[in-house]
Parts: sequence; structure tokens; C-alpha cells
Amino acid sequence: MKATSANVEAKRAAGRKAAEMVRHGMRVGAGTGSTAVEFIKTLVERVRLERLDVEVVPTSFQSRMLCLKSGLTVVDPAFVSNLDLCVDGADEVDQRFNAIKGGGACHTLEKVVAALADHYVLVIDESKLVTSLGQGFPVPIEVLPAALGLVTREVERMGFSCSPREGSGKDGPVVSDNGNLILDVNTGAISDPLALSNELDRIPGLVGHGLFVGMVDCVVVGRVREGEATADVLTL
Amino acid sequence: MKATSANVEAKRAAGRKAAEMVRHGMRVGAGTGSTAVEFIKTLVERVRLERLDVEVVPTSFQSRMLCLKSGLTVVDPAFVSNLDLCVDGADEVDQRFNAIKGGGACHTLEKVVAALADHYVLVIDESKLVTSLGQGFPVPIEVLPAALGLVTREVERMGFSCSPREGSGKDGPVVSDNGNLILDVNTGAISDPLALSNELDRIPGLVGHGLFVGMVDCVVVGRVREGEATADVLTL
Repeated sequence: MKATSANVEAKRAAGRKAAEMVRHGMRVGAGTGSTAVEFIKTLVERVRLERLDVEVVPTSFQSRMLCLKSGLTVVDPAFVSNLDLCVDGADEVDQRFNAIKGGGACHTLEKVVAALADHYVLVIDESKLVTSLGQGFPVPIEVLPAALGLVTREVERMGFSCSPREGSGKDGPVVSDNGNLILDVNTGAISDPLALSNELDRIPGLVGHGLFVGMVDCVVVGRVREGEATADVLTL
Repeated sequence: MKATSANVEAKRAAGRKAAEMVRHGMRVGAGTGSTAVEFIKTLVERVRLERLDVEVVPTSFQSRMLCLKSGLTVVDPAFVSNLDLCVDGADEVDQRFNAIKGGGACHTLEKVVAALADHYVLVIDESKLVTSLGQGFPVPIEVLPAALGLVTREVERMGFSCSPREGSGKDGPVVSDNGNLILDVNTGAISDPLALSNELDRIPGLVGHGLFVGMVDCVVVGRVREGEATADVLTL
């Protein structure tokens, strides 16, 4: 999608709103992607201006780099068993707050950090709200390179097509931060996200998939109305 | 376990017996570990003596190296969607042919290759046959390094203890062929292997676990009786 100035403003509003949820002493997951970046930037401002004492756990190489460069206190998720809050973006969110993530190929670590958090918040602009997941975005799956043949076969047996994601900057397929392939699975509208999630989880060699089911506590939606950017906090 | 000459003979008998199952033109998964090595050695003999035309898909770096050095035709599992047969070892096998694998930390790829095969055969000596899985061996799980905290927490919430496997030859924990950590989960006797397998599959950041449930078609058991090594083919 073209980043119009309106949806840049909407993302900024959502990111800023979510940053208000951070309290002194919290340990916070900091997500990946353009809307999560707005959250991180506002958090950095608050740390500077309010001397907020927080530790952040990034969900990707990109996020870790931004947090470190911004002077935030970064903690390795490997040595954490709990977070107070995690804020991340999403590609699609349905009315039950199930989501598709992984447009940035970071969904495996994003899910790990999300699962650590007591409170998991998605920040999106309103274009990401959908009635059914899977119509606008494929479900990304991270796959061990050696499992490409098996996973492709299993996905096709489920009735879907898929292909290794291509990108730019290197020949051949995109390689994830974990050294794996990303396949985009064309599911069409997903009637039962939990069943699909469980089915994908059982495929050997599939490291992580981009369906986030039953994990999200609230969604901060940025909108622009009559030139004014606002953000609403939605809860179930 | 000490490799007594009797159980070396039992493993050899099991490996040789399984190698008799290979037919001309087959594409075959070749497993990891001491008993699978006996299978591969006999397969190499048959290829030489009978000019058997087979392609092999190894389940690990160790297995790939042995197959290549032995002159077998090695195929990358990434570009295979089906195998005729896969032969591998196991740490424990129960009466329903569910198994624990992963003493060699190769269980993730072993499961990928097993799942590709029409016919999956385990080769073991009789000491590996058990009434309940989990009493003699922990269940190994392969974990993204960044997910160590979350996976440990989830395993402990399931009521089990676990710890990163230590080995030798390097400081710090064992690193798998895929660059991940191996945690050994102390389950005790496992009453419902399928339920535990599904539960483990759902943990974010868990790349693969060593419970093989409902995958095995037959088990070749090597034994030594009165100095004589034999192997029996068990089917369900």
C-alpha cells in the first residue's frame, strides 16, 4: 500500500497512543514495522523527557537496532520469562482481534515476545481492520530451508498455494533473521483461524506462522478524519 | 549406555535387516545415530554389489557426510516432496510405535524426512522398547535461542523441568545443525503422547520436538540370543 501522508499520520497517532500505556518500571516488547516504529519513537521521547525507567525487548533485528541507537535499555528475550506489555504492528486484524503478521518476515520472534507479555497491544491504521483474515494478505510461514519440499506439500494438501517470498537486495528467496525461508500461503478468507493455526503448528520444519490467534488484548487504531489524526483503543 | 559388543551386534542386525527393504529405484531417507549408520553401511554394500540404483536423503549433517563419503547419490530434502522409505534410529519406542528421538539433536530434520516417507521404519536394539515413553529419556526440544525464556516458562507451566543441553567441544550449550538450542524436557512417563506433542507444537519459538507420534510403520528390533544376533520386523 502507498504510504499516503494520511496513513502515515494515522500510524503515528496509533503509535503515540500506545506509548502512553507504558509506565515507569515496565519491561516492554517493542515490535517491528512502520507503526511500531512510531511507538518506539514516542517511547524514546518519554524516556528522555520524563526520565521513564523502562527496559525493552525488541522483536526483530530492525527493532533491536532502532532501540539500541535510540539509547533505550535493551534486554535479550532469551533471558526474560515475562513482559508487562508488548506493542507491535499487524497486516490484518479481525473483529475477534485475531491477526495476520509477517509482512516483514519477523513474525516468529514477534510471536515469542508477544507470548511473554501480560498485555499485548496491536497498533494499526484503520486499513488493517478486516471482517475475515486472509482475503487481503497471505499467511506468512517461516520454514527451515531443508523442509521446503515437505511444507509445500502439506500446505498444498490443505488446499492452499504457497511460494517462497522473493525480495530485493539478494538473489534467490528472502532469508529471515533466523536464517530460514518465508513462504506466503494464499488461504483466502479464513473461516476458523484457530483450527488453521493448530494445523500449521503441526507441520514438521515449520518454524513459525503469522496467524496470531487469541493473543491480542487490545488494538489501537489510528484514523484521519477531516485532516485530524486520532487513535482509538479497542477492547473485546 | 555402554556400547557392549552384544548391543553393537544387535544394532548391526537391525540395520542390515532394514537395508533389505530397499528396492531398485527407491528414494530413501537415511537416518542418524549408531543403528542408522549400520543401515547406511549395508545399503552402501548393496549399492556396490547389486548395482542398486537409489537416491538417499540424509536426516542430519552426520548422515549427509557419511552418505557422501560412501559414494551414495545424495538428494536435498528441500527439493523432494515424497520418499519411498525412511530408516532411522530412536531413543525409545513404545508398543504403539510412538517414539522419542533427539539424543543426537537432529530430531527436527529427522521428523521432516520421516514425514516425507511413504514407509517409515525405526531400527533399534531391544533395550529401546518401553512400555511408556519418557521414563528413561527426556523429550528433546529444539528452540530458537531468543525463545529460551518463553519456552522454559511454558514447559514449566506444563509441570516439567528442562534445561539447555550441554555437550563437549565447545563452551556453553549444544548448538543444533540448524543453529538452535536443545532443551531436554523431563516429562516422566507420558500418558498421552499425542496430546503432549500437540501442546509442544503450539509453543512459539519451539522449532521441533522429539516426540514422534503416529508416524512409524514398522520397527526392526535387533537382539542377541545365545551369542546369535537376529532382527525381528514388528508391525502394529
